[in-house]
Amino acid sequence: MKDFDPAGIRALTFDVFGTVVDWRTSVAEAGRQLARRHGIDLDANAFAEKWRSGYSGKLAEVNSGQRPRERLNDLHREILAEVAPAFGLDHLPDAELDRLNLVWHRLRAWPDSAHGLWRLRQRYLVCALSNGDSDMLATMGKFAGLGWDMVISVEMANSYKPEPAAYIKAIELVGAQRPDQVLMVAAHANDLEAARSCGMRTAFVHRPTEWGPGKEPDDGSGFDLEVPDLVALAVKLGI
Amino acid sequence: MKDFDPAGIRALTFDVFGTVVDWRTSVAEAGRQLARRHGIDLDANAFAEKWRSGYSGKLAEVNSGQRPRERLNDLHREILAEVAPAFGLDHLPDAELDRLNLVWHRLRAWPDSAHGLWRLRQRYLVCALSNGDSDMLATMGKFAGLGWDMVISVEMANSYKPEPAAYIKAIELVGAQRPDQVLMVAAHANDLEAARSCGMRTAFVHRPTEWGPGKEPDDGSGFDLEVPDLVALAVKLGI
Repeated sequence: MKDFDPAGIRALTFDVFGTVVDWRTSVAEAGRQLARRHGIDLDANAFAEKWRSGYSGKLAEVNSGQRPRERLNDLHREILAEVAPAFGLDHLPDAELDRLNLVWHRLRAWPDSAHGLWRLRQRYLVCALSNGDSDMLATMGKFAGLGWDMVISVEMANSYKPEPAAYIKAIELVGAQRPDQVLMVAAHANDLEAARSCGMRTAFVHRPTEWGPGKEPDDGSGFDLEVPDLVALAVKLGI
Repeated sequence: MKDFDPAGIRALTFDVFGTVVDWRTSVAEAGRQLARRHGIDLDANAFAEKWRSGYSGKLAEVNSGQRPRERLNDLHREILAEVAPAFGLDHLPDAELDRLNLVWHRLRAWPDSAHGLWRLRQRYLVCALSNGDSDMLATMGKFAGLGWDMVISVEMANSYKPEPAAYIKAIELVGAQRPDQVLMVAAHANDLEAARSCGMRTAFVHRPTEWGPGKEPDDGSGFDLEVPDLVALAVKLGI
């Protein structure tokens, strides 16, 4: 990690799923509750993992032009229908699965997130920059007590991260004159690498359980900043 | 005003300048302070009026295709340069006028706005929908204590209100299934008429001093709701 001078930073853009909210625990818990109501024996952690992992394949199809961009809500619902049989959820009424699909609007924040963002907002424009739909991000922010100055969904760029168009649109929307006035914050190395290739500065946040039990987190050592959580990021930025 | 059933409303979109913030008083005061520092005798109210009124002509040029869309910040700066001579401000250094131009990021809210929005957020997605740039709206929200769930700038639609594209983009971004799930809130009849023609529902807010001394406010009687302020809007919606 190099010396980092926060002067010149105008805005912070945050990856949301995994970096700010704990999708894994929230989704597993929603699956567990639904299964319990219907007397289904569900491996809730495996279910959460499987549902989420279907997502990167779909996004790759969009980014390569094989299929048009869709709302993340619709992609999540499509993946849920695909994974349901393996978990014994395919005999549930559609309305139940529709309701389960909304768990992605009601994810719990990591314990440091709300306070960390609040502190960072004292000095910076603090923005979500996510593959989630705008309304999903706004609803989730309200649910989890996250005070965003601006919610930037990649639907505004008609693309998905890590396509450069998504970062370039964010740089424009936060009103930066130059990409290095924007600090991208994420728990995923590929997100930060893409941001860096667009000229943004980068902060890696350690979320040790983001990859699931027994999985090794990404290596965060090559970025401008590397922090254990969002409160530590505020401290590192001198707030 | 017809009977209005708030059931089915998912999101509220707010015009910002004049409806949520008092641009007139804020801009006049900034002009007054600058003039005082330089010993210039300024009619601050006339100056604010003149600066603002240059804006609709520029937007009409954009919407008719005579000129490309630009950031509102740049349009404001261009108009400021045009009106400066008539007010004796044209001999000031460019940096002073650049700084004055930022007053549009630091407008004061009307006294009811912050509390009204906070109450409305308990039930609805509460969104700015403005011709202002995204970062201008986000900075202003922070300055004025306005907690938006989402900031929607018409730059996301590459247009300006009252072009339909601006409202249609907002309906999409708030995740509405139908336009009538969105309530447009404004102090200006033309904004609400355009929203209504896109299928949105409409609420007129009375801001008696928005048009300046001696000017008659718009007639707000033809819309779904007509309220004196944003707290009254919350009450009317049963919050």
